[in-house]
Amino acid sequence: MTVRAAVAGASGYAGGELLRLLSGHPDVEVGAVTGHSHAGQRLGALQPHLAPYADRVLEETTPEVLRGHDVVFLALPHGQSAAVAEALGEEVLVIDCGADFRLADAAAWERWYGTPHAGTWPYGLPELPGARAALRGTRRVAVPGCFPTAVSLALAPAYAAGLALPEAVVVATTGTSGAGKALKPHLLGSEVMGSMSPYGVGGTHRHTPEMVQNLTAVAGERVSVSFTPVLAPMSRGILATCTAGAAPGTTGEQLRAAYEKAYQDEPFVTVLPEGQWPATASVQGANGVHLQMAYDADAGRIVVVGAIDNLTKGTAGGAVQSMNLALGLDEVRGLPAVGVAP
Amino acid sequence: MTVRAAVAGASGYAGGELLRLLSGHPDVEVGAVTGHSHAGQRLGALQPHLAPYADRVLEETTPEVLRGHDVVFLALPHGQSAAVAEALGEEVLVIDCGADFRLADAAAWERWYGTPHAGTWPYGLPELPGARAALRGTRRVAVPGCFPTAVSLALAPAYAAGLALPEAVVVATTGTSGAGKALKPHLLGSEVMGSMSPYGVGGTHRHTPEMVQNLTAVAGERVSVSFTPVLAPMSRGILATCTAGAAPGTTGEQLRAAYEKAYQDEPFVTVLPEGQWPATASVQGANGVHLQMAYDADAGRIVVVGAIDNLTKGTAGGAVQSMNLALGLDEVRGLPAVGVAP
Amino acid sequence: MTVRAAVAGASGYAGGELLRLLSGHPDVEVGAVTGHSHAGQRLGALQPHLAPYADRVLEETTPEVLRGHDVVFLALPHGQSAAVAEALGEEVLVIDCGADFRLADAAAWERWYGTPHAGTWPYGLPELPGARAALRGTRRVAVPGCFPTAVSLALAPAYAAGLALPEAVVVATTGTSGAGKALKPHLLGSEVMGSMSPYGVGGTHRHTPEMVQNLTAVAGERVSVSFTPVLAPMSRGILATCTAGAAPGTTGEQLRAAYEKAYQDEPFVTVLPEGQWPATASVQGANGVHLQMAYDADAGRIVVVGAIDNLTKGTAGGAVQSMNLALGLDEVRGLPAVGVAP
Amino acid sequence: MTVRAAVAGASGYAGGELLRLLSGHPDVEVGAVTGHSHAGQRLGALQPHLAPYADRVLEETTPEVLRGHDVVFLALPHGQSAAVAEALGEEVLVIDCGADFRLADAAAWERWYGTPHAGTWPYGLPELPGARAALRGTRRVAVPGCFPTAVSLALAPAYAAGLALPEAVVVATTGTSGAGKALKPHLLGSEVMGSMSPYGVGGTHRHTPEMVQNLTAVAGERVSVSFTPVLAPMSRGILATCTAGAAPGTTGEQLRAAYEKAYQDEPFVTVLPEGQWPATASVQGANGVHLQMAYDADAGRIVVVGAIDNLTKGTAGGAVQSMNLALGLDEVRGLPAVGVAP
Repeated sequence: MTVRAAVAGASGYAGGELLRLLSGHPDVEVGAVTGHSHAGQRLGALQPHLAPYADRVLEETTPEVLRGHDVVFLALPHGQSAAVAEALGEEVLVIDCGADFRLADAAAWERWYGTPHAGTWPYGLPELPGARAALRGTRRVAVPGCFPTAVSLALAPAYAAGLALPEAVVVATTGTSGAGKALKPHLLGSEVMGSMSPYGVGGTHRHTPEMVQNLTAVAGERVSVSFTPVLAPMSRGILATCTAGAAPGTTGEQLRAAYEKAYQDEPFVTVLPEGQWPATASVQGANGVHLQMAYDADAGRIVVVGAIDNLTKGTAGGAVQSMNLALGLDEVRGLPAVGVAP
Repeated sequence: MTVRAAVAGASGYAGGELLRLLSGHPDVEVGAVTGHSHAGQRLGALQPHLAPYADRVLEETTPEVLRGHDVVFLALPHGQSAAVAEALGEEVLVIDCGADFRLADAAAWERWYGTPHAGTWPYGLPELPGARAALRGTRRVAVPGCFPTAVSLALAPAYAAGLALPEAVVVATTGTSGAGKALKPHLLGSEVMGSMSPYGVGGTHRHTPEMVQNLTAVAGERVSVSFTPVLAPMSRGILATCTAGAAPGTTGEQLRAAYEKAYQDEPFVTVLPEGQWPATASVQGANGVHLQMAYDADAGRIVVVGAIDNLTKGTAGGAVQSMNLALGLDEVRGLPAVGVAP
Repeated sequence: MTVRAAVAGASGYAGGELLRLLSGHPDVEVGAVTGHSHAGQRLGALQPHLAPYADRVLEETTPEVLRGHDVVFLALPHGQSAAVAEALGEEVLVIDCGADFRLADAAAWERWYGTPHAGTWPYGLPELPGARAALRGTRRVAVPGCFPTAVSLALAPAYAAGLALPEAVVVATTGTSGAGKALKPHLLGSEVMGSMSPYGVGGTHRHTPEMVQNLTAVAGERVSVSFTPVLAPMSRGILATCTAGAAPGTTGEQLRAAYEKAYQDEPFVTVLPEGQWPATASVQGANGVHLQMAYDADAGRIVVVGAIDNLTKGTAGGAVQSMNLALGLDEVRGLPAVGVAP
Repeated sequence: MTVRAAVAGASGYAGGELLRLLSGHPDVEVGAVTGHSHAGQRLGALQPHLAPYADRVLEETTPEVLRGHDVVFLALPHGQSAAVAEALGEEVLVIDCGADFRLADAAAWERWYGTPHAGTWPYGLPELPGARAALRGTRRVAVPGCFPTAVSLALAPAYAAGLALPEAVVVATTGTSGAGKALKPHLLGSEVMGSMSPYGVGGTHRHTPEMVQNLTAVAGERVSVSFTPVLAPMSRGILATCTAGAAPGTTGEQLRAAYEKAYQDEPFVTVLPEGQWPATASVQGANGVHLQMAYDADAGRIVVVGAIDNLTKGTAGGAVQSMNLALGLDEVRGLPAVGVAP
């Protein structure tokens, strides 16, 4: 079986990572690669690492160009996916790396994005309870945000096991690729190297409602999330430090057991041996999630730290994993399990 | 007036930073520089940036060598300062960059360090309530830990103003110089570049009781601190993201006003204009502290982010600031106010 | 066909990269993993990125442990490979990532390494004239040094085409993984981040005679190489800036044509379009070589810049490429062609 | 004596560094700060590290604004300095950090810049033969380019002593601040971290004729320079690896002696002890120049490596050093001699 895939938004970081992963997927053949502002340019001029596709020319992102593929990956600015998906028809697998179809609550969408809610698609985080079943055979996938991927996987088992109080406090550092290729002064290399700075502080980052949605679903009660993202001097990687009040009677042993049980059959999630803490380099370029946890008796809180690559498991890897499920392929097919370290 | 200063532990990062600052202090002349394992070596071979002192030779750290100075800075492994200070006599100003004399609670000391408590010296963080007065004219100073410096300054005004509940959650990223020059595999450049990883998770870092002590003193009730330090791919800098439950009725305006009032006369603390968040590069090599705060109504928490240079304000700069106070010099004398950015 | 492979020296960076590549090679099954100083430890504690092999335990590097594999990769300190290879027998494919069998000239070996010459094995750089044929079917491979890989591929076509005078001047920056995991002060993250420094200056680096050997063979006359390696603040990657006096009458067009012709059928070498210069990120984690060249009429020199990943094409990728040739597999089998960028 | 200084172009990296240095200069008071595209903005919003000047508002760069200062520093795009200088009058000290007045040869200027030659001002590199005398009392200074600063100081003694042939080959890595704050894709943090890439290859960088000019003047014959700049993953610093054919009979001892003699009285130049090589971190934020040299008998070349901070000694520090000379102040006044390391 050969799956023919198109990538819309191929000039950006998410699009580039999709192409990197698809180039190594044994069942996929890359068809159209599109991009709005760079249409007509050689892909090699924009993404020189994609050597096998260097001579491809970016086409415009139109239904005509995207039709005729089995899978269409959308890495577009939010608000553009619904129209493209509709034009492609229901039989094409559409995998949206944008935010448009992630939230189930229309009011939350409108509050955070200020536009009408486009709908809700199956959520591309198979490791969450119930998610994998909804992805099998689907023709629409909403790929989670990179921070919600890390945070939801880090905290879901604690909530599922009733070990955490419904007030999470999360600080997550991210590599600069998470901010995309936008030409903004604070993203210049001179500014980010040797420096750390937060943004979207005080609960203003749009990934917050997605975390609330995921953790609330698992906990069965509303979970508040105090979320602070921090820009770090590295290109890739998210390290999410996630804490929550410990439910009365929680022990460190219960906590560990909950995670080992929750993820024992997950191919991409590693609960590290006690005492070993995650490092983002370990999952660089890989679809893996590394987790470790502790119970702080003095502060009465649990602390779970998760590491992912924001572009791989956090975006393009999660997208390919969902594609595999949707198409009935082996879930791990074509996805690197080993990080590029050091 | 010329102050004659000795630096014990001059081969390490704290010692090097002390010498860098002292080289630019108009009232200081550097006398002995000592170091145990590197005694007999040229300083230039160990600290090539200290060009003016390159030909100095490290002496052994003994009372004989250290005597005859007006000020002795100690940058030694913990547990060694008491004996050195005693041998120097009460009239010499001894400024300890180690932990030995930071904690007032002997039981806390013994729990966290496992050795008998050596005592408590005036605490070298003049911006804390009451601290400045205790430093004027003193002949003993306990320089705060780097994390407690950042976290205490970030949270003290909120506790002083009654705006925060006594449960703080702190995640602080630090440059690798905070871990010193120890030859450990996880500190190799290959390991830290492009990677982030936590350590001392679950309330096990020894700076925790120092934060609890400082914030409890300000709040007037015991403040718990869930503290997670994270190693970042940069040489210097701490970015501390500090949150606490908001006291009922707290508003964002109150929060900001509390900080602007608390620090309006502080020469080294900058409360940034609304909307501008701290970046560690802005205070690299400087004695400054940059702060910004927000109230997250959804999560019911305040978030205060502070940036310092762990080696400057977090160690050597704080030490020199305390020296200035102890000796009756202008508090800002010889201390850089401008960071080396970009 | 399933090839059973052992990796000796699996705790180091070269060994880790070998395992990363072998984990994605469809025809390879990893058998023994060995390491001297870390024997008995879980691989996951030393190389946490190698998730699929985390529970493997390092064995001692002995003939008994290494026997029974089709391929044995040696990533050992120099001087140890000959004895291991002899004990394994002639029918086992032994691929030595060390220096022992790279030099053909016994006198050169003895001058540079100070020990008796162990011999000369087929040289694992298939892109050099004549090398590929010698690798097909061989049971012994000497993997080139990382710098000689970059420099030889960057300059060989110019010498082969008679466009360069026999005096090359090369400055090559390398990521710190090229220096291995040795615990040396100058390799600490605090020292390397934000800094560049040379080493082995003045023709004292042991990769120099290997470059001289390769370029001399291509040029048909002795080529001198002034080589300066420079340590750069990144984990991986070599950028080699290679210049040589231009042979009389050389033009920029001739130069470019020589490279396009030399590498037109090479699967891993990309001669970039005019005006686009290599960046090491483009080949991070990939087996690719990116090249660009210019003729400087004012200075009368040609300049060729080559980028590789020192651990991939520069070591482990080159080793696997040679394995593929030796075993009659497709040369590109299992080797990433796309870099992990950004 | 208080010198009143204005900085035109204060929103850029050179302007920011000028203000950082001037803030620590005991004899200088900063007057107007100007910037074209950011006029009207708070300096603190653009340069948050300049805490003492945070509330200054950028004015337009006009003669009216700049008049009334003793010194005017120009950090403007090339081509704009002549008009500003003329409007200010001959009695004001004008220090141009741009290229306009660096070249003595009008034809060279026109070839490289494509505009009419504005003239030639005293060259602000006091360590070059004859330069210091021309700077004393001058009212016009052309600050050298950052690369020519490093390369000229690295090679001048060898040429002055007749130890080098007139064909230099230079590869110099630079931190990204050397490229300024321009919003270009290849300067994004995601692109530069973990990567190295050259630019201006093949003798096309505009600093080349300036190096040729300086070395030719010292050598007394035309020196060709093959120059390749390389962008490195760090914010600041230049490491220049400079080689030249060794004049017949040259020895390593002669070479070292030439440098020690040439720089024995220079306050900012350190010829490192034999065996110790420069690292850019050692001079970060300082006005220092670290040099080391070797003679490579096999290749018949000398190699001299120099490290500077491109923004400090390479631009703003050199400018202030020249100001000190022009105004009759102590040459080292206000200039940091110690780098911010690690």
